[in-house]
Formats: sequence, C-alpha cells, structure tokens
Amino acid sequence: MLEELKRRVYEANMLLPKYGLVTFTWGNVSEIDRETGYFAIKPSGVDYDKLMPEDMVLMDLEGNKIEGRYNPSSDTATHIELYKAFTGIGGIVHTHSPWATSWAQAGRGIPCYGTTHADYMYGEIPCVRNLTKEEIEEAYEKNTGVLIADYFKDKDYAAMPAVLCKNHGPFTWGKDGAEAVHNAVVLEEVAKMAARAEQINPDIKEAPQSLQDKHYYRKHGANAYYGQSK
Amino acid sequence: MLEELKRRVYEANMLLPKYGLVTFTWGNVSEIDRETGYFAIKPSGVDYDKLMPEDMVLMDLEGNKIEGRYNPSSDTATHIELYKAFTGIGGIVHTHSPWATSWAQAGRGIPCYGTTHADYMYGEIPCVRNLTKEEIEEAYEKNTGVLIADYFKDKDYAAMPAVLCKNHGPFTWGKDGAEAVHNAVVLEEVAKMAARAEQINPDIKEAPQSLQDKHYYRKHGANAYYGQSK
Amino acid sequence: MLEELKRRVYEANMLLPKYGLVTFTWGNVSEIDRETGYFAIKPSGVDYDKLMPEDMVLMDLEGNKIEGRYNPSSDTATHIELYKAFTGIGGIVHTHSPWATSWAQAGRGIPCYGTTHADYMYGEIPCVRNLTKEEIEEAYEKNTGVLIADYFKDKDYAAMPAVLCKNHGPFTWGKDGAEAVHNAVVLEEVAKMAARAEQINPDIKEAPQSLQDKHYYRKHGANAYYGQSK
Amino acid sequence: MLEELKRRVYEANMLLPKYGLVTFTWGNVSEIDRETGYFAIKPSGVDYDKLMPEDMVLMDLEGNKIEGRYNPSSDTATHIELYKAFTGIGGIVHTHSPWATSWAQAGRGIPCYGTTHADYMYGEIPCVRNLTKEEIEEAYEKNTGVLIADYFKDKDYAAMPAVLCKNHGPFTWGKDGAEAVHNAVVLEEVAKMAARAEQINPDIKEAPQSLQDKHYYRKHGANAYYGQSK
Repeated sequence: MLEELKRRVYEANMLLPKYGLVTFTWGNVSEIDRETGYFAIKPSGVDYDKLMPEDMVLMDLEGNKIEGRYNPSSDTATHIELYKAFTGIGGIVHTHSPWATSWAQAGRGIPCYGTTHADYMYGEIPCVRNLTKEEIEEAYEKNTGVLIADYFKDKDYAAMPAVLCKNHGPFTWGKDGAEAVHNAVVLEEVAKMAARAEQINPDIKEAPQSLQDKHYYRKHGANAYYGQSK
Repeated sequence: MLEELKRRVYEANMLLPKYGLVTFTWGNVSEIDRETGYFAIKPSGVDYDKLMPEDMVLMDLEGNKIEGRYNPSSDTATHIELYKAFTGIGGIVHTHSPWATSWAQAGRGIPCYGTTHADYMYGEIPCVRNLTKEEIEEAYEKNTGVLIADYFKDKDYAAMPAVLCKNHGPFTWGKDGAEAVHNAVVLEEVAKMAARAEQINPDIKEAPQSLQDKHYYRKHGANAYYGQSK
Repeated sequence: MLEELKRRVYEANMLLPKYGLVTFTWGNVSEIDRETGYFAIKPSGVDYDKLMPEDMVLMDLEGNKIEGRYNPSSDTATHIELYKAFTGIGGIVHTHSPWATSWAQAGRGIPCYGTTHADYMYGEIPCVRNLTKEEIEEAYEKNTGVLIADYFKDKDYAAMPAVLCKNHGPFTWGKDGAEAVHNAVVLEEVAKMAARAEQINPDIKEAPQSLQDKHYYRKHGANAYYGQSK
Repeated sequence: MLEELKRRVYEANMLLPKYGLVTFTWGNVSEIDRETGYFAIKPSGVDYDKLMPEDMVLMDLEGNKIEGRYNPSSDTATHIELYKAFTGIGGIVHTHSPWATSWAQAGRGIPCYGTTHADYMYGEIPCVRNLTKEEIEEAYEKNTGVLIADYFKDKDYAAMPAVLCKNHGPFTWGKDGAEAVHNAVVLEEVAKMAARAEQINPDIKEAPQSLQDKHYYRKHGANAYYGQSK
C-alpha cells in the first residue's frame, strides 16, 4: 500500500548521496501521508546503492510497523515526535552532512550572515542542547524529537525548517521529503559559508534585518515574487 | 527573435553548474544585444537541468518583457542598471558561489595577493555597502545596481569586472555572457586562495604593485603578449 | 592459493581511490587468513588503475613471501606486528588520507566531538609518539607496529580501530579488509569535522560521555539495535 | 620532428586538469630532448579540451621557435633558465594550483611536517622573493628563472624538485614532464595538509630529522627499497 509514497521517499533518499550529504548510511528521509497517518522511512543501515523503493518501511505515529521487511531507521522515534508536533510538515531529513555537523559539534547556532540563508530560513538556525543522561537512557531518539518540538513550541517551524542537535547533527523538514532534502542542501551550503565568513572576518556581523526580511519575503508569503508561481 | 542571443545566454548559464558556481537556481547570466537594446536572461527559479534555450526571457532596458513565457530572473532590475551604467559590457553574471559569497558575507573586499588575481582584475575586488532599509523597500534589485554603478562612477569597470554586495554575493561582467562567467570562475578561485593565504600568514601583504602591473598588462591593453591574439 | 583472499584484498584496495583516501600509491590494505596465518597485501608502489587481483602478495607472519611476483608494500612489517598483537582483527589499512594525516602531522589525537565519531570509535582517537632515531634506524616499519601494539596493550583495540602515527598518518583495522577501509573512511570524515568544529568554536568541549556511550552501544555489543542484524 | 616528445608533453599537460591542478589555461608542462637541446611546451592560452599533440611548440634554449603554429607559453623564458641551470632535469611544470599558490601568496615556504612531504622532497619547500621592479621590467619571465636558479646554486635541485614564487605560484621539475607533474600533485597535497595541520596545532613542529631522512632515503638513492625497482 501507499506505493506512490514509498517511491517518493525512495527518490528523496537517493538525493542525499547525489548532493553529497551522506557517507555510507548516515542519513534518512521520511514522508508522511497525513490522511492515513502513515509515513514511509528509509530502513536502518541499508546501503544507498542497494536501496529499492519497496524497501521503504511504512510506520504509524505510534511507532508500529505497518509494512516492510526491514527495521526502520534507528531515528524513527525522532521523526514521529516531529510529525506530531509540526502538523503542517510532510517530510523530514536527518543527515551527518559535514558542515552542518561541524556546527552541531561546535555547539553553536548558525547566524544569518547573508541572503543565501535568508532566502530559506528566517533568523539564526538554532542548536538545541544535549539531552541529559536520564533523557538519553529513558528514550534517546524519542526525546531528541521532544526536545526539538519543545524548542519550537512558541516559534514558527515553517520559517525555520532546520535545527542542529548539539554534538550530533542536523534535522530539516518541509512540505514533503523532497523539500526537506532541499532544505538540508541549503543548510549545508549556509553552514559552509558561515564558517568561512567568520574566518575571513572575525568581527563579522549578522546581515541587517531589513535585508533578511526582504529576501525571506520575496520568496515566502503573500507578497513573494521569486520564481514562476505567480 | 534574437534566437542566437538566447542560445548564447542559455549556454553561458549552463557553464555555471559546470564550474560548480551554483547550487539549485542560485545564479543567472544575461547578455545584451546593444543594437536593439534587448537582453536575454535566465528565467526565475527554473532548474538548470530543465532549462532550454527558448526559455531565456527577452527584456528591454526599461524592464519590459519583449518575449518569453517565464518571469525573468528576480535580479533583472540589477542587470538593467549595470547595462545602463557600464555601456562597454555585453554580459552579466550573478551567483552565490561559496568563496566569493563568504567574502561578501564577511563584508570585505578581496586584496590582490597574487598574479592569478592580477591577471584578470586590477587591484582589490570591492565589497559595496548594504543598502539602507529605505533603499531596500523602495526598489531592492534596482538599487543594488544603482549602488554598484555609483561605486564605479569614477573607476574603470573594465579593469575590475567584479563586485561583492555585502551580505549577499558577487556580480561579474564582461564583453559577453561567456566572458562574464569566465570572470565569475576567476573570482571564485581568487576568493578561495586569498582566504587560505590569510590563514597561512596573518601578516600577509598585497602583491607588489610592479608585479600586479606586469601581470595585468601582459594580458590587457596595447602591449599584451599572453595567448594567441597577436 | 587463497585466490578468494587475494580477490577480497584487491577489492578492498580499490575502495581507497573510490572513497578519495589515496593519491597515487599512498595506501595499502591487507587481510589475513587466520587458519593458515598467511595474509595478502598490496604490492609496493603499483598504480591502482593497473592493479589486478593476482598482483596481491601473499606473506606469512614471519615476513616471508609465500606467493607473488611483486615486492609487498613497504609497510608490510607494520601490518605483521598489528596482526600478531591484535589477534581478533582480520584486516588493516594504511593511508595518507588528507584530514587524518593533517591531525597526525599536528601531533594531536582527535577528541570525540560528536555521534559520528562515537558511532564507530570509543573515545579519543590516539596519536602515538615519534619513533626515536634508534628505533627508526633499527627497524622503522616493524617498530611502528610495535609502538602501536604497545600503546594498545592495556586498551580495547576493537573499540578504537584507528591510530595516528605522529608526523606520518593513520592506520585502521577491522574484522576484514573491507571493514578496515570502512573505518578509514569514518576516520577521515571525523578528522575533517573535528578540525572544522574547533575553528567554529575554539572553546569546544567533547561530547558528553552519556551521549558517546549511547551511540557506541546502539551499534556495538549485546544491546545494539542499529541496522538489520537482529 | 620530435613527434614522440610532443606527444609526451601533450599527455603530461593533460594530466594537469585530470589532477585538478589547473583552472582554464593556468598551467603548462614542458619536456626537453637533451640531445638536440630542443624542448616542447604548451602553447599560450589554448584551452586544454582543444589541445592536440601537434599543438605543442618546439623551442630551443635560446628562445627560438623551431616548430609550431602557436606562440609558446608566456612562461617559456622561465623554463629555459631552469633547463640551463638544472642540467639533470628533463621536465618542468608551472601551475596556479590552489593550495601551493596560497602558500606562495602568503610568502612562506612549506615546512616538512610529515612523511608524505619527506617521501618526495627533502626539507622545507622554498618560497623565493619577489623580483624587483627593475627585474620585472627588464625581463620578467627570464628573471623568474634566474632567481630560482640562483636560489638553488648551492643546493640539490634533485632533492627539492619544487619552488614557490612569492605572490605568484609553484614550479616543479623532474626527469621528464610526467615526473614534474607527479611532483606538482605531491606539492599540492603537501601544501594542503601543512596548512590544515597548522590550524589544528598552532604550536606544530617539523617532523624529526631522523624520520625525514628515513622516508626520503627509503625512496631515493642507493639504499632505496620502496616500489618494484630493485
């Protein structure tokens, strides 16, 4: 069932190696069908060059496997928490992409230094804290999702479709799996350029708010005029 | 009409992904036909791997669309100002190429540290200031062009075919679209090597003026002797 | 004899250029057949694109050539010491992969800054001291292996399948040649991200021990649950 | 005439883009036939993907063109001085490869931090001074060669087949064009790793002399044992 969803999730997963975001199996994409409440996700630890659309694992939001011969990604419980908290999203990506992961390891959010960042993400890309020993031991993957959801409780997850988990790596999301991958690529480029910009100028400042607003809103919202959609 | 111009602009645009200067649709090339005053430019937000020569949008210098089913690049108004101010150029490129954009985000011009730079660009590659909130709100893309043109008012735009816009990214130009792309590639290489050279030696100095002159003038002007042209 | 072993070692060697770990002939993989005590290793200084399975050299643990028309890798004596000391391993890799080698040249072990590291290697990746002039002159390659083995005497070489030799480069190991290459790829990624993370945050701290434990033990040992093996 | 020499020089030139050492036409390889005293060199400013073996230009050591429809590389006079001074070499390479050029722009020689360096080059890779205004105006390319030759007057050019020209870029040499390219690739790798190693450890020290000696002499001289040559 939901063959089309599985095919889409398969194709979104295959974009990760295409864009250089994964080494080995260090990443996963899921996409949800909001009508049934089922989502398809990459199986755990299966090589990208052996992956087939029918290998995608179908899960429900209680963590039950609906269909599939493989174990789902070990990060499945994180995806579930995000789908429950961010009801407007349709796809989620987790990777260990090198530049975003370097910022996560450094424990720093990524300041908005330019329009490449502002075109897609509004403000500083946050880095959430480490889980406590108790949170890790109780339910590591689930509590990772709970922590992210908690951080965004009073924020607009649509305007900031990315987060860094300290000492771990990034999660991104979007209206579907493909858009979540798109945001993962943007994040990696932005992370790279922010690190280099800080080296070029240690006294660097964030981009002016008016410039950030201009670029974000020329691509998003009622007055957007970038692209061909209007 | 101007099918040959559109084909040339298409081909120049396709050089951007070939040389690794763009991610997704983050770049555009235009070229002008000075006789008619019309220029062809990439449509806004269309993927490079779906682009066709006939998708190029034909515009005049008042910003009217002459031909084309797509919206032109959202940066079209910047191109117009540059074509009006720099009457000797035939092509313009805008990208978010990572190293040049990192310098732009850092808000610094690129000093001339070596002959690779001096072979193509005479002196420091400038980084122009942020637009004010008022300039952004009034006409962001147009005022970006006005700002660049204003900076070059008393300078030789032919000897410095590149500029960085603070917290944004680079524009380059040339006698046609292909040469403007060529200069965008040079800029990216020069930006990369300048950043690394500063890390290798924090007390680095600019290349001696006599060396800069030698390299620039062995490729440009009446006494040039590089290549096969004489 | 042991044609299958030679084919496996050939294929593991060919992964080194595939993953960008070697320039020219700067790397080698071996794998041992513990029953006969023979191991196959890359010949010294033969180009990867001319390498054939039958070119692998078969050696015993006393350093005698059992079969093969070529000289074995100049690092053979190091491999022998590691096979003798680490009786649970089946494969060894040596490369000059750029990021790991940069840490080796810097003379520093790689702290565990994140889960990518903790997923595979438990704690700081060690950098062993220079050999003395006497140790070098007596038996350089053999004493390199003796030094590594000595370092791990009271440590778990299975939980830390990598070492850096100061001013030289890395060795990695695993249950076979392919796993040793896998660990060499992990090491290179981890070395890259650790260097960048330190630049992004000079006050960086190691990942919390509870997070390191969680990631290492979700992939290793009796309670592992990553992948498809259970 | 000397068709075989031209073919070899063509092939050596084509290795430059293969190894990522050149952008556009920023590099050239020559090789000399010591019997006739003629050398073949890349034509000036001709694209690598349009280059043919018969395009190589044949020159003598007085700078006369012996054969060829194109102008020779603008760096020809530098090659001539090096062939005259280093009578044991057969090939020369000049590039603007990014890491080596970054060190040249920084005006620093590259210390020997590890065995990758010591395997091929004995000691610090030198960076020679800027030419004076007078030397540049009198005969820039020739005086570049004179300066390099002068630096090596009392040194062993075979043990250090590379030099950086301040604010410019590297030259390398070898027994033929292919070996000179090989050394250019080594130089680029060594330059990259040295820059990164210094960032990882600002208090880095050069590799111990005994280790440098061991690696250099296991590949060079009467007691070499690396590879298959003995």
